[in-house]
This record gives sequence, C-alpha cells and structure tokens, in this order.
Amino acid sequence: MNTECIFCKIITGELSADKVAESDNIIVIKDKFPKASVHYLIIPKQHYRDLLELDDCSVSGSLIQMARSLSEHNSELRDFKLLINNGYSMGQRVFHVHMHFLAGSKISDFENLI
Amino acid sequence: MNTECIFCKIITGELSADKVAESDNIIVIKDKFPKASVHYLIIPKQHYRDLLELDDCSVSGSLIQMARSLSEHNSELRDFKLLINNGYSMGQRVFHVHMHFLAGSKISDFENLI
Repeated sequence: MNTECIFCKIITGELSADKVAESDNIIVIKDKFPKASVHYLIIPKQHYRDLLELDDCSVSGSLIQMARSLSEHNSELRDFKLLINNGYSMGQRVFHVHMHFLAGSKISDFENLI
Repeated sequence: MNTECIFCKIITGELSADKVAESDNIIVIKDKFPKASVHYLIIPKQHYRDLLELDDCSVSGSLIQMARSLSEHNSELRDFKLLINNGYSMGQRVFHVHMHFLAGSKISDFENLI
C-alpha cells in the first residue's frame, strides 16, 4: 500500500467509492467522471505504480478476467472496451494501475477509432 | 485454430504479417492500418472468439505481460496505451481476441480521452 495513493485509500476504506465488484486481488469502482454510460475502473488491490511494475501474471490476468465476469453477469455489458493508459504522456493520472471498462451507449468518442 | 480466422492463418504461417515479438502463447504483429506511430496487435496463439471465451487467466495475463516486455525493451515505448474492443458494437472486427498496443506520437485521437 502507498499512503499517498487515492486508490490505496479506497481499497483500505479510508476514502469512499461506489464499489461494483470485488475479488481477492481486484476491486471495481465506478469512475467519478464517466466517459460512457457504463464506466468502471478495474484496479488491483496491491499497489503498482504502472504496468512496468506489475510483473505478476496472475494479477494482470485477473484484471481481464474481472472484465469477463462483469460482462457475463449483465447482458447489457456483453460488448465493452478495455483501456489502460500507461504513463503520463498517455493520459495516466493516478499512478496505481487501473483498467477502464467502458460499455453501453454514449461512448461516441471511442467508437470506431480502432 | 479456426480455419476461417485471419489471425489463425498468420499464426500458422499461411498468411504473412510483420511480426514484432513472440512467446510460447502470444504473437505480436504490426497493425496493417496504424492509428499511431507505433501500433501493434498482441494476439494469443490459441483461438478465442472474444474475451468471453478467454477463460484462461494465464493467457489473459500474458497479453499484458507481453506489453510490459515490449515497453521494457525499447525506451521509446515507455508510455503506451492498451485497448481491447470486445464485441461488434464496440468496434471488434476480427473475432480472435487481440489487444491494441499504441505508443509514440500521432495518437491525438486517443490523447486525454480518459
């Protein structure tokens, strides 16, 4: 845990967040500034500054498996996008690894970009 | 393997592609229609139509670990974005799981979107 990290504070309960799901090594919260009708953040409970620090394949795999689980349990989330911004120049602002889960309507900014 | 799948044909060598890296369960090729100065596709060798089929945590973890490896071995790839479009309505067009690796300049379409 990093005592200065906002996500670590959410994980320990020091800060509140709108929690969507949880497993032994992952939590999922709603993004406070959603860019889509469904916009979650899938976050490892252990603190990794960025993906270069995340050398545990079971944790990186769990990020994607959590996305599968969210999708499987809600037919409205059948289709989705996963996005990780790694590094400041690529838009990362919270330096605790997190994966954006985007679904539903109102994601026109992302549609068909790739 | 799926005999109709373009990525399976690349993996077996039936179709050519500009290969960037390879591990026991992953290949990385350059995207034929790059949306950034560096635009790779990180692809599991085993055929999974989409993430809902990919129930192997070691494979999903390997996708992200391969991104780490690409970044670690090239200082110009220190910062990057990872994107998976899952499902037709989210832009998936090849139905064999693949993760976009975007880096370098010329990714203004993606910058600061999230």
